[in-house]
Amino acid sequence: MYITKETIKTRMKYLFYPESIAIIGVSRNPKKIGFQVLYNLIKDGYRGRIYPVNPYADEILGLKVYRSISDIPDEIDLAMIVIPAEKVLEAVNESIRKGVKAIAIISSGFSEVGNKKLEDEIVEICNRHNIPLLGPNIVGILNVDHHMNLSFCPNLPYRGRITFITQSGALAIGLIGWTWANRIGLSKLISIGNMAQLGFEEIIDYLKDDENTDAILLYMEGVKDGRRFVDVSRLVSRSKPIIAIKAGRSERGAKAAASHTGSLAGNVILYETAFKQAGIVSAEGLEDGFDKALALSLQPPLKGDNVVVVTNGGGAGVLASDYAEIYGIPLKDIPQDLREEVRSVIPPFGSPNNPIDLTGNAYREDYIRTLERVFRHKWVDGVVAIYVHAAITDPVEIADGIAEVWKRHSEKPLTVCMIGGREVVVANSWLRDNGIPVYPTPRRAVKAMAALRTYGRYLED
Amino acid sequence: MYITKETIKTRMKYLFYPESIAIIGVSRNPKKIGFQVLYNLIKDGYRGRIYPVNPYADEILGLKVYRSISDIPDEIDLAMIVIPAEKVLEAVNESIRKGVKAIAIISSGFSEVGNKKLEDEIVEICNRHNIPLLGPNIVGILNVDHHMNLSFCPNLPYRGRITFITQSGALAIGLIGWTWANRIGLSKLISIGNMAQLGFEEIIDYLKDDENTDAILLYMEGVKDGRRFVDVSRLVSRSKPIIAIKAGRSERGAKAAASHTGSLAGNVILYETAFKQAGIVSAEGLEDGFDKALALSLQPPLKGDNVVVVTNGGGAGVLASDYAEIYGIPLKDIPQDLREEVRSVIPPFGSPNNPIDLTGNAYREDYIRTLERVFRHKWVDGVVAIYVHAAITDPVEIADGIAEVWKRHSEKPLTVCMIGGREVVVANSWLRDNGIPVYPTPRRAVKAMAALRTYGRYLED
Repeated sequence: MYITKETIKTRMKYLFYPESIAIIGVSRNPKKIGFQVLYNLIKDGYRGRIYPVNPYADEILGLKVYRSISDIPDEIDLAMIVIPAEKVLEAVNESIRKGVKAIAIISSGFSEVGNKKLEDEIVEICNRHNIPLLGPNIVGILNVDHHMNLSFCPNLPYRGRITFITQSGALAIGLIGWTWANRIGLSKLISIGNMAQLGFEEIIDYLKDDENTDAILLYMEGVKDGRRFVDVSRLVSRSKPIIAIKAGRSERGAKAAASHTGSLAGNVILYETAFKQAGIVSAEGLEDGFDKALALSLQPPLKGDNVVVVTNGGGAGVLASDYAEIYGIPLKDIPQDLREEVRSVIPPFGSPNNPIDLTGNAYREDYIRTLERVFRHKWVDGVVAIYVHAAITDPVEIADGIAEVWKRHSEKPLTVCMIGGREVVVANSWLRDNGIPVYPTPRRAVKAMAALRTYGRYLED
Repeated sequence: MYITKETIKTRMKYLFYPESIAIIGVSRNPKKIGFQVLYNLIKDGYRGRIYPVNPYADEILGLKVYRSISDIPDEIDLAMIVIPAEKVLEAVNESIRKGVKAIAIISSGFSEVGNKKLEDEIVEICNRHNIPLLGPNIVGILNVDHHMNLSFCPNLPYRGRITFITQSGALAIGLIGWTWANRIGLSKLISIGNMAQLGFEEIIDYLKDDENTDAILLYMEGVKDGRRFVDVSRLVSRSKPIIAIKAGRSERGAKAAASHTGSLAGNVILYETAFKQAGIVSAEGLEDGFDKALALSLQPPLKGDNVVVVTNGGGAGVLASDYAEIYGIPLKDIPQDLREEVRSVIPPFGSPNNPIDLTGNAYREDYIRTLERVFRHKWVDGVVAIYVHAAITDPVEIADGIAEVWKRHSEKPLTVCMIGGREVVVANSWLRDNGIPVYPTPRRAVKAMAALRTYGRYLED
């Protein structure tokens, strides 16, 4: 690779995996973003070299502060700029003179408030020098796999295999706690702000080869170049699922988006068509987006339409049957031989049909015996396992049993629903730590399985 | 009332508020339901008189055990029967001879396994003696307001104003932990099992005058008498909102329901039409049902279509705008005078349109100043307040500010969305303890507001 001229695309790795970072505009005041970005980077364990820049300081948080980026006696991969808008152009120029390989700008006060001329000028300079530019108006860059919290978000997200690209900075901050509370693992959280140079298209393109990303989740109000977005996504979605939360679908929402990010939110049918062409799984909102991304980051696609539901609660089974139909993977009768096998191992009064009802008397061994037979039958393409917390059973034992069987059959997708409160929290963690997506309701578990089918169908085309 | 002959309806209070209970079939074995029901009743603080019955025991859990219900030297309001099906008829007869005022049967082995003849016989006897009968095949009766956990559910639900009637016993158990985890308060949890005598119709009718119930939530696979169900619900829903989770909507789901509870799940359009006629708010599933019940149990109906969204996150505002349109309460431009007033109090770069964007720099006082002006304007019918957790703000302070304003304007409905993880847990509790329904996503907060409008429209007819 050393003979290849480094283009913007190949240099994008310096945005996400820099070995050295200059923060231009550090501050000693803990209320300032220029303090928080430095503080978070240190606190969350970044292992590269950190160079704070501020002409009026000598030392902050134990680090020597440089008057200017040009004074730093080291190569700089990434310059992160956190100074007032009117000074940013100069900092960009200095950074380029210094030879940085990538630039990101947290500062606001650009096109989002009508100051497009300055923004264009910065983009033009970066383009001329083949410098990838993230921002301006971002909350920062968070790469869990690189221990890098280069942002004013107080924490890194929960670790996992999803990269979340968001046009809303506020949602980035708000959703970090959510990833911990719901154990939805992210690899990177990328705030793209005004998308002056790099937008969804370029970052999706880059992530195609990112070995820590298994699924890409987008919060999107609009794109820069619809055609290019579809072309890139179509290519990337062959190897990595892309899930899009498209905001601004309604007339009023589009108006709000225009005022929020200046995006032309566009027509909802246009977007849905584009998503289909691009192999993008559409999500209805934040919860749905994360639910689907979780399943798609952990589980293989559903390669056929034969889904079996196994439950210990009849009512939950009825609901799951309804949702399977609503979400396009209607349950079918299971083959006679499988039904007979299942009947022979389930508790009395259970039902061997689809949904298979183990009844409230089902213990760990009942789940294992039944799931083992279901998974290994060649007719079965995927399984939704439901546990409704019962007074007599330990959800962790059930979860452990479910995980044990799935590990022997991990070529087929599994989603799980655990209904309960505090009792099922540990079981849920156990399942997720074992790569199994788990949800609190039959609806969400079935919908996640349907998303695995949507993606599976894309791959068939 | 003392001159009125006690009919089944007037005697139903003895099912839910008995002063004395005989448990027929107590056991010394902690694995048996006959032990658990007695244990739970004592443990969860029932204050009435408890009389265990078992011909082969003298004392269980410190209580004297009677050989037969007829040996009990006291009046018995409620007989709870927990013995094998084949002995239940005899116990019913003995209970009636003893003069009990109501009977409930946890035991299974009746119509749900084809043993309809025995069930019919028991109903016939109860009808003849004007005895209300709950069950058979129930998990028990839980009345939080009466400190009564007469069931094999390990705990009472979180306390509140919703009465949940469920045809699925497993869901009753599974959802108790959920009510605690999500702070969704119930007054009663009523498992109706085979609905041999009392079904949804009779219990809804009874709850009309129950002073502890403000909203009625149903998990329903089928009803006994559709006509009667609609008539009763239409009457009751004038004073108390009824929310129905109807399972078995799909063909497959209906088949599963038939196998689960023997219900004729019926046609989905038929049910939706019936719900509309009856003034019942339809829910899409468990989460949606509880979300709507929470709002309807805590907030007044939305009496007009003018909803204002106030947010500190632009993206969340865009999403809320989308959902408002999807769920039938599209946002409108707010009147000029209100817009001017709002503009004068929101932070710079905020947006005074609907959604009103306070920006990520909004503190408690910004919420208070803005919400106060919004609530007091006569054009405004209801408010959705959104907080996306930001690094700089304390969600509890925001929640407290929101609650402070709403208390001055509690004739108008409010729903809240708090986006975040652990950081917003305390704020959420604070809001719910102050009577304000709060949700983790804009979608659910807006959908709950739409449910308040659906109910408001029923009341207008």
